[in-house]
Amino acid sequence: MNPPRPYTLDEIAERVGGAIRPEGAGASHQAGAARSESTGLTGVAPIDSAGEGSVTWISDVRYEKYLPGCRASAILAPVDFGATPMPAILCDNMAASVGRLINLFAPETPTPPVGVDPKAHVDPSAKLGDGVRIGPFVEIAAGASVGPGTALHSGVYLGAGVEVGADCRLWNGVVIRERCRAGDRVEIHPNTVIGADGFGFFRDPDLGQAVKIAHYGVVEIESDVEIGACCCVDRAKIGVTRIGRGTKIDNLVQVAHNAKIGENCLITAHSSLAGSAVIEENVILAGYAGVREHARVGRGGVVLAHSVVTKDMPEGCVVGGIPARDRRSGLREMAAAQKLPELLRTVKDLKRRVDQLENSADDTQAG
Amino acid sequence: MNPPRPYTLDEIAERVGGAIRPEGAGASHQAGAARSESTGLTGVAPIDSAGEGSVTWISDVRYEKYLPGCRASAILAPVDFGATPMPAILCDNMAASVGRLINLFAPETPTPPVGVDPKAHVDPSAKLGDGVRIGPFVEIAAGASVGPGTALHSGVYLGAGVEVGADCRLWNGVVIRERCRAGDRVEIHPNTVIGADGFGFFRDPDLGQAVKIAHYGVVEIESDVEIGACCCVDRAKIGVTRIGRGTKIDNLVQVAHNAKIGENCLITAHSSLAGSAVIEENVILAGYAGVREHARVGRGGVVLAHSVVTKDMPEGCVVGGIPARDRRSGLREMAAAQKLPELLRTVKDLKRRVDQLENSADDTQAG
Amino acid sequence: MNPPRPYTLDEIAERVGGAIRPEGAGASHQAGAARSESTGLTGVAPIDSAGEGSVTWISDVRYEKYLPGCRASAILAPVDFGATPMPAILCDNMAASVGRLINLFAPETPTPPVGVDPKAHVDPSAKLGDGVRIGPFVEIAAGASVGPGTALHSGVYLGAGVEVGADCRLWNGVVIRERCRAGDRVEIHPNTVIGADGFGFFRDPDLGQAVKIAHYGVVEIESDVEIGACCCVDRAKIGVTRIGRGTKIDNLVQVAHNAKIGENCLITAHSSLAGSAVIEENVILAGYAGVREHARVGRGGVVLAHSVVTKDMPEGCVVGGIPARDRRSGLREMAAAQKLPELLRTVKDLKRRVDQLENSADDTQAG
Repeated sequence: MNPPRPYTLDEIAERVGGAIRPEGAGASHQAGAARSESTGLTGVAPIDSAGEGSVTWISDVRYEKYLPGCRASAILAPVDFGATPMPAILCDNMAASVGRLINLFAPETPTPPVGVDPKAHVDPSAKLGDGVRIGPFVEIAAGASVGPGTALHSGVYLGAGVEVGADCRLWNGVVIRERCRAGDRVEIHPNTVIGADGFGFFRDPDLGQAVKIAHYGVVEIESDVEIGACCCVDRAKIGVTRIGRGTKIDNLVQVAHNAKIGENCLITAHSSLAGSAVIEENVILAGYAGVREHARVGRGGVVLAHSVVTKDMPEGCVVGGIPARDRRSGLREMAAAQKLPELLRTVKDLKRRVDQLENSADDTQAG
Repeated sequence: MNPPRPYTLDEIAERVGGAIRPEGAGASHQAGAARSESTGLTGVAPIDSAGEGSVTWISDVRYEKYLPGCRASAILAPVDFGATPMPAILCDNMAASVGRLINLFAPETPTPPVGVDPKAHVDPSAKLGDGVRIGPFVEIAAGASVGPGTALHSGVYLGAGVEVGADCRLWNGVVIRERCRAGDRVEIHPNTVIGADGFGFFRDPDLGQAVKIAHYGVVEIESDVEIGACCCVDRAKIGVTRIGRGTKIDNLVQVAHNAKIGENCLITAHSSLAGSAVIEENVILAGYAGVREHARVGRGGVVLAHSVVTKDMPEGCVVGGIPARDRRSGLREMAAAQKLPELLRTVKDLKRRVDQLENSADDTQAG
Repeated sequence: MNPPRPYTLDEIAERVGGAIRPEGAGASHQAGAARSESTGLTGVAPIDSAGEGSVTWISDVRYEKYLPGCRASAILAPVDFGATPMPAILCDNMAASVGRLINLFAPETPTPPVGVDPKAHVDPSAKLGDGVRIGPFVEIAAGASVGPGTALHSGVYLGAGVEVGADCRLWNGVVIRERCRAGDRVEIHPNTVIGADGFGFFRDPDLGQAVKIAHYGVVEIESDVEIGACCCVDRAKIGVTRIGRGTKIDNLVQVAHNAKIGENCLITAHSSLAGSAVIEENVILAGYAGVREHARVGRGGVVLAHSVVTKDMPEGCVVGGIPARDRRSGLREMAAAQKLPELLRTVKDLKRRVDQLENSADDTQAG
């Protein structure tokens, strides 16, 4: 797990898209700067555990307390950040710069060697691209195809006619059932299931019991999609369940039959789309959020945690609650709810006072 | 994926349980009818993408806009539906008729060939029925039995003494631990786990830590049950965790130790039954619904999404919320909650007015 | 599944930590006592199904109705429990005594035989301790180590450099990715995924799309931890995602990158910790509870079902709701909410009465 190589401070600044703070702006850091010049920067670590030679970052005032004791040889900080005991690279987009910094030192991820492991089970009619990496205990069924450079870790299953594009990575135990398709650079984490039958039944009036509806549609996963572990993306009854290009899905997420997910969405753990639900591009679902059958969330919409979208929501919405409604009204209601016990007392008191006033009024009129 | 064979309009009507609309009732469809007579109906497709030769359906006015441009050669519609540009089969139970229509054109699902794959690992003491289909990387432990016609896709595990009935289908990666039982025609989707230990511990006063309670009961899955992907059905401590005949379970569902599920229930994704919870026959759990330890939902009850049933609920109930209560009171509370911010203002105003009235009354009395 | 051996009543009392009720205190049980002396106690069963020769227990008055017809030869009961038709062992900690009773009769759990199954795939550089039990279709990658006595059921995957301690049990389909570590006596249930990449992306301003942040930290699972089926414990970005010694995790739980779980916590099904969330020792999360990014729950805290902890919560807290707040205020608000429809009517009525009073006051003043 050695990082690729040491970097100089200048290189780091360039790679992360920041600027080294000019001399004099942070008085105490000369010794650190000298060290980093001579030895090179060899890794990245959080501010509370970074050692000499490493680069760290600070984005949040809560972590300032670690700054005096921090031994990192360089630090990424926001452009308006004060003096630091080590050379600072000032960044106007901290999230992007920290992301790039971490990626800069990433070791290579272990991958099965190029070729087909003798313990795999590959149908002779399957088509394998150049440089595929097929681990042990993988099954590739008849007519399936695997694009060049794609890695299938041990225990993956590709059903008949499945198509997986180039440079994908399917982790251990991933199941993709017959005829489903994935584009290029798709990554799917362990034990996720693509293309299982949707949850569709009808009550047969003659038989008096639930009868399964056959699901012979497919799942289509566009390029650059990432799907977490233990997710379920069901195949369409007929037609397609679609996950748009660039969308990222966390763990334990349910995508039901015929759902449509637009491009570049972010879907957090334990969320779900019910049958034929639609989320347009750039939608964010927070944890445990659900979108009900046939409901739609417009592009750029945000659904807060533990909410249920029961009807169509417009572009750019921020909605929460069960059923989900505009966040501001939701927050107002929530704030009001916290005043309820007091309100009950106030009303009780008012009632008593009005009773008295009415009695007095009667007296006055009587008198 | 070719459908079994083309059907005539008469055959479709008979199979779906509908009636061809009498001549003259839908004026514009003669050309389509003629086409379907000559070529046969070869598939099914949604109204917005159906091509010539296919059958479509319409159950919802939202989709009427697609009707004029639809090229389907026949359509299923409710009995009171207006004229259509293609021959219509009128159905008094659309859900059942559409379900049958889809099933009519279903291709065969890929299945391992009859026999035992040489890459499987089957204990010599296991009993395999006629026509079983055992894929690669399957393990069948000592004393397990697999009924005739049952298919185990690659990566399935059956523990010691497990009994699986006839004509079942266990998809890839399904795990059934020792001594658990499944009836006939049971289908379990990939990576679901049957019979793992329940979540049961006691705090040992001598050791001062949690000690695991052994779980040596079983799971019993009755016939005609279907269980989705990535579900967990835990074995009983002692005794049985039971799933009743004909019950259908969606993905990512948790059924804890000693829970009892009646016949013909429908359990939606992300739901859960806690330890020893009971749902009687024909109960429906919507998404993320939970039933707490030892609580019971009476037959035919419905638990709404994201609810928690904390105590026994009667037959035919419709309950929601945390804790779950009768839906109508829940809806009234929810409607009231939306009026809360306004109510706070009203009460504040009333308070001011009552203050004034009291002051005036004092003045009046004083005067 | 025969229990190890029969026990006498005295032995049972000693093992469960109870005391046999003195003669005369339960008049009707002499026959049962005689039976148990002669034949021995051979098993444990619930009160509604226990047969002769078995031991049962009663902790809850709801089950008293089963007592008269119960054929068990001995019963565990609380110290103040009334007469029983069979000999009673009185216990001052029923939960612990029943747990010990169940464990006393537990059969051995089936385990792969000692050695490495020829259908496993073990890298020559892996280090295997004495007495390891490696099932078929297991992959152990380069440099991984498995401690003595540890069992890996079929289909387990250990990535490069993974370290698993002594006497662990990893069930079928468990995936542990590269460099993650588990202590001793760790048990992980089927299809759980340890060390998948966390859900971390940054929006690259130059590319205009989400870019994955590499995750090259690890997961560290301390000794005596148990993790349920279909759970996801993501690796840290950098650093460690930690699960403290003795913690028990139910099924379908999500633990995001860099989360920290203290010792002896109990985490119920469908719960989740978001990125860098912290729960201290002895915390309990009920079902579907979530702890948001960077939020912390103090030691001994309890988070109720379907709640979201959005900010730090103190030691010993009991919190619920979305966002989670002190349970007592939550319960007060909930009780108040149920009075809302009535409150709306009351306020409407008050408003009418104040209108009248104001009119009268005007009249009075005018008069």
